[in-house]
Amino acid sequence: MQQDGLSELFRILDLTGVFANAILGGLIARKERLDPIGFVTFAVLSGLGGGILRDILLQHGPPVALRDYAYLLTAFAGAAISYLANVRGPVWERVWPVIDAIALGTWAAAGAQKSLSVGLGWLPAILLGTITAVGGGAIRDIVTRRVPTVLGGNTLYATCAIVASVVLVTCTENGYPTTGLVASTITGAGLCLVARWRGW
Amino acid sequence: MQQDGLSELFRILDLTGVFANAILGGLIARKERLDPIGFVTFAVLSGLGGGILRDILLQHGPPVALRDYAYLLTAFAGAAISYLANVRGPVWERVWPVIDAIALGTWAAAGAQKSLSVGLGWLPAILLGTITAVGGGAIRDIVTRRVPTVLGGNTLYATCAIVASVVLVTCTENGYPTTGLVASTITGAGLCLVARWRGW
Amino acid sequence: MQQDGLSELFRILDLTGVFANAILGGLIARKERLDPIGFVTFAVLSGLGGGILRDILLQHGPPVALRDYAYLLTAFAGAAISYLANVRGPVWERVWPVIDAIALGTWAAAGAQKSLSVGLGWLPAILLGTITAVGGGAIRDIVTRRVPTVLGGNTLYATCAIVASVVLVTCTENGYPTTGLVASTITGAGLCLVARWRGW
Repeated sequence: MQQDGLSELFRILDLTGVFANAILGGLIARKERLDPIGFVTFAVLSGLGGGILRDILLQHGPPVALRDYAYLLTAFAGAAISYLANVRGPVWERVWPVIDAIALGTWAAAGAQKSLSVGLGWLPAILLGTITAVGGGAIRDIVTRRVPTVLGGNTLYATCAIVASVVLVTCTENGYPTTGLVASTITGAGLCLVARWRGW
Repeated sequence: MQQDGLSELFRILDLTGVFANAILGGLIARKERLDPIGFVTFAVLSGLGGGILRDILLQHGPPVALRDYAYLLTAFAGAAISYLANVRGPVWERVWPVIDAIALGTWAAAGAQKSLSVGLGWLPAILLGTITAVGGGAIRDIVTRRVPTVLGGNTLYATCAIVASVVLVTCTENGYPTTGLVASTITGAGLCLVARWRGW
Repeated sequence: MQQDGLSELFRILDLTGVFANAILGGLIARKERLDPIGFVTFAVLSGLGGGILRDILLQHGPPVALRDYAYLLTAFAGAAISYLANVRGPVWERVWPVIDAIALGTWAAAGAQKSLSVGLGWLPAILLGTITAVGGGAIRDIVTRRVPTVLGGNTLYATCAIVASVVLVTCTENGYPTTGLVASTITGAGLCLVARWRGW
């Protein structure tokens, strides 16, 4: 029962992250003066790219983003909102960093967990947790001809995903997978927020 | 018998599309002043990239472009012709848009069909049909440091692939897979040609 | 016994190539003024990208670079050394081309061999041998917004990988897999070195 509630919460956080990152993808499509196809593409890359990259590397069936309709529909909704309204202003500026930090923690935890569950060891699990969290943004940057910001010149970001993945792997390998999921998400999100507020 | 004839026709259209897009890839390699390796690479990316991307996402064995020799050999032939002769001029300008439109319809239909056949639903089938049709060109644009033209600033292109994929999925889900294949290809190709002639 | 010694030697050459290419990736990260995450990313792309690309295309389980820890740890070691010391100067300038040439031969041979062993034919085996050898560098170039140097403007490089792959496929298809592995590596490495010294 409690387990079910946790899965449900985790899914909500996951999809909220997809939604917010899809909106961000739309903002970038707007800056690049793209058409609706561009908005959808950038929304999908931003919101789902990291998980798709992880699933391609895991080679364990088609990406979950192609099997669970909620993912694509959420990304499309983000693209549509971003296309219809120029989502900027004080609310977005205040809400976005929080949602993005939660998404980073959630995705790192989910990515590391899935890697362990298909039989990979701790080292690739940490790598794939990190890729899940930051890969979508990196692909989006490459498509817009930027060296991915995650590689330098930003505040701590990938590092938070690495720490979250390490927490998940450590807890899970010691027999506490559920604790690991919660602790990993909170650590990743918290660290990311602190890093932004402090300008690390 | 009729079914066999249809498969044969479909294969011819498919490979013609690979050939023409491989030549286009060679034209871009020439503009970038690349060597023969560059011609082959751009021919393969242009002609086979969309299908390879689809097969990587479907996770259903190695890409068909690596298993059926006709694909690679056709792409190499396009690269060779493009390397030996600067394929430009009135004939190319008139023939290319027609072949490209047919390829777009053929690839969208084939991509959506294959996605359904490995068990994915209508939504990812439409997405993968579209990726099959426009993905090769998009990858080629990224490698040449352009924001993919398919994302903005061109006439309707991805939209035609989406429509073609929708036609295929609708017909197939209602029990008419063969009709769907024909109708989807014709719709995609026709729409693309009209969009170009009208400058949509 | 002799077979074991050969596998061992081959593995040492493979990991030496990963190490040297990871250091090169770090040098490029330094030029782009990236942070430690950037160093690790470029080290992994340079040292392991070709093999990962091959394994994604082969669709035969997760990339070996994610299963055999030696690969990731070697790439990380290269990144660390490159981050701590600006590896330049006469020793690097003299040693790097030799190690790079050996890596090219080793990776082409290993890539072509693995492709044959999962059931692909001679043509895709040659393609995938070449991609294994030059793919990592090409991905690294794309991420740094360069048209991959392997496509033009350099001395013979991809050609050496193609020749090495052809040697491996020819020997293996005729019943001499071990001879093929040795001959292929030596041919690829030797040709690459001669091409550099002669400025082909």
